[in-house]
Amino acid sequence: VHNGIEYADMQLIAEAYDILRTIGKQKPNNLGSIFSEWNKGVLQSFLVEITADIFSRKDPETGGFLVDYILDKAGQKGTGRWTVESALDLGVAIPTISAAVDSRALSSIKDERVEASGQLDSYGEQVEIETDSLISLTHDALYCAKILSYAQGMALLAKASSEWHWSLRLGDIAAIWKGGCIIRARFLEEIRRAYADNPVLKNLLLAPAMRQEVSSKLRALREIVSLATKSGVPVPAFCAALSYYDQYRTKALPLNLTQAQRDYFGAHTYERIDKPGVFHTEWSNQENQ
Amino acid sequence: VHNGIEYADMQLIAEAYDILRTIGKQKPNNLGSIFSEWNKGVLQSFLVEITADIFSRKDPETGGFLVDYILDKAGQKGTGRWTVESALDLGVAIPTISAAVDSRALSSIKDERVEASGQLDSYGEQVEIETDSLISLTHDALYCAKILSYAQGMALLAKASSEWHWSLRLGDIAAIWKGGCIIRARFLEEIRRAYADNPVLKNLLLAPAMRQEVSSKLRALREIVSLATKSGVPVPAFCAALSYYDQYRTKALPLNLTQAQRDYFGAHTYERIDKPGVFHTEWSNQENQ
Repeated sequence: VHNGIEYADMQLIAEAYDILRTIGKQKPNNLGSIFSEWNKGVLQSFLVEITADIFSRKDPETGGFLVDYILDKAGQKGTGRWTVESALDLGVAIPTISAAVDSRALSSIKDERVEASGQLDSYGEQVEIETDSLISLTHDALYCAKILSYAQGMALLAKASSEWHWSLRLGDIAAIWKGGCIIRARFLEEIRRAYADNPVLKNLLLAPAMRQEVSSKLRALREIVSLATKSGVPVPAFCAALSYYDQYRTKALPLNLTQAQRDYFGAHTYERIDKPGVFHTEWSNQENQ
Repeated sequence: VHNGIEYADMQLIAEAYDILRTIGKQKPNNLGSIFSEWNKGVLQSFLVEITADIFSRKDPETGGFLVDYILDKAGQKGTGRWTVESALDLGVAIPTISAAVDSRALSSIKDERVEASGQLDSYGEQVEIETDSLISLTHDALYCAKILSYAQGMALLAKASSEWHWSLRLGDIAAIWKGGCIIRARFLEEIRRAYADNPVLKNLLLAPAMRQEVSSKLRALREIVSLATKSGVPVPAFCAALSYYDQYRTKALPLNLTQAQRDYFGAHTYERIDKPGVFHTEWSNQENQ
């Protein structure tokens, strides 16, 4: 799960980078300063720190910025995939982590992407936004998406713990991660505190402090996803984080239709909102209508 | 894979329903007419046909529309999950199908969602759009997302075929599905034709007819995702379809940064864009900067 969260953190940072370079036209030296600044606030973390370092590094051979010469074909050792497989087994949704794993898979078919890029247009529009606003919105969207991603990872741990009787203390896990690992970050202290206040918290988003943080940044996340969507910058992990929030907080999802369809073609039955029990309808019998 | 595609089809239809009922304020009787109309065009399919039937069905007990009394808690027999697991094993990205599986998982924790709905606000905005435009944009977005979802499913079959030496004839598979199954649809004839023209097609999106269809509907998909994002209607499968397109058609993804990070913290090495070979940088050595 640690590595799944790490994949998501890295993918969210990559998408923030893409927004700033593609919509905001920021060059690596500016990006280095931006990430360095971000590392002083709520995003303070090992990954943001090294990202700032990376953008500042010059390529000794060409004199350009080294990051611009690195091939966008990301490898994986399979640990992110294991996290997704565990989540599938347990029936827990971790869409931001899945999006990160899928993004690495798509990055790896570089030759096919180069071929496709000559044939498939974006049909995106030029979006106009002041650079300072874009940087600030991207910062807030990244922080919000990061919380939503950790909420998914912790929900997976909580389910694994109850399913397999592990009695995990999630606050201690956050404290251990903070001690030293790739996802070490100031933010883990907030998570530790949330579980200290309520060890049986069902989802991180229901902790008052987390709810407050997410709610103050949610408009930024909506704005960034909308901007990227219009302009054609792919932001699968940002989107998945936002959809997770919107699905989690929605009392009535449209999957009543899904249940009706399943009952129609497979007699899988359905439940009702107004009384207990299991029901089946003879949908194709026109006489009953 | 058939069932994975079926999950995605059903989830995309559910999201279109949610957009029309939540943003467009459409009631089941109108929705029945809309889907019935859609079933005469490019979306003609068994699932769209039964969706129209479902919306028209009255509940004999209450006199209301039956769909409004069905609980939004969708079951699954595990076949969609198997598709996602196969894709993970083969390293193929099928994000729209994953989003459909995740959506069923989130639908199943109804009690938790009801609790969360009282605590988590949407911070979405009221979006203003004429009903006829919304219906037409939703139709085009649904068709576009459907093509993008089938492209993912067929890419998975192609990879499985080459990896395990199955010599699958993908056009024949489309023709068999068209013959009779839950995803039977007019659109499968287009797929059959695409593989008849080019049996070794790498991705459905590269077939000229498919490219044309997607490109003519892509603006609608961007518009609908942006509208839903702003208003707080969760559209994970629509988002995942659009992100898939945007990642697939992008020559230079931001995962050059991911590779730099992996090389920084784990010495995983990277490739360069300007010459062959495998490289490593001593990132943390400040002297070299």
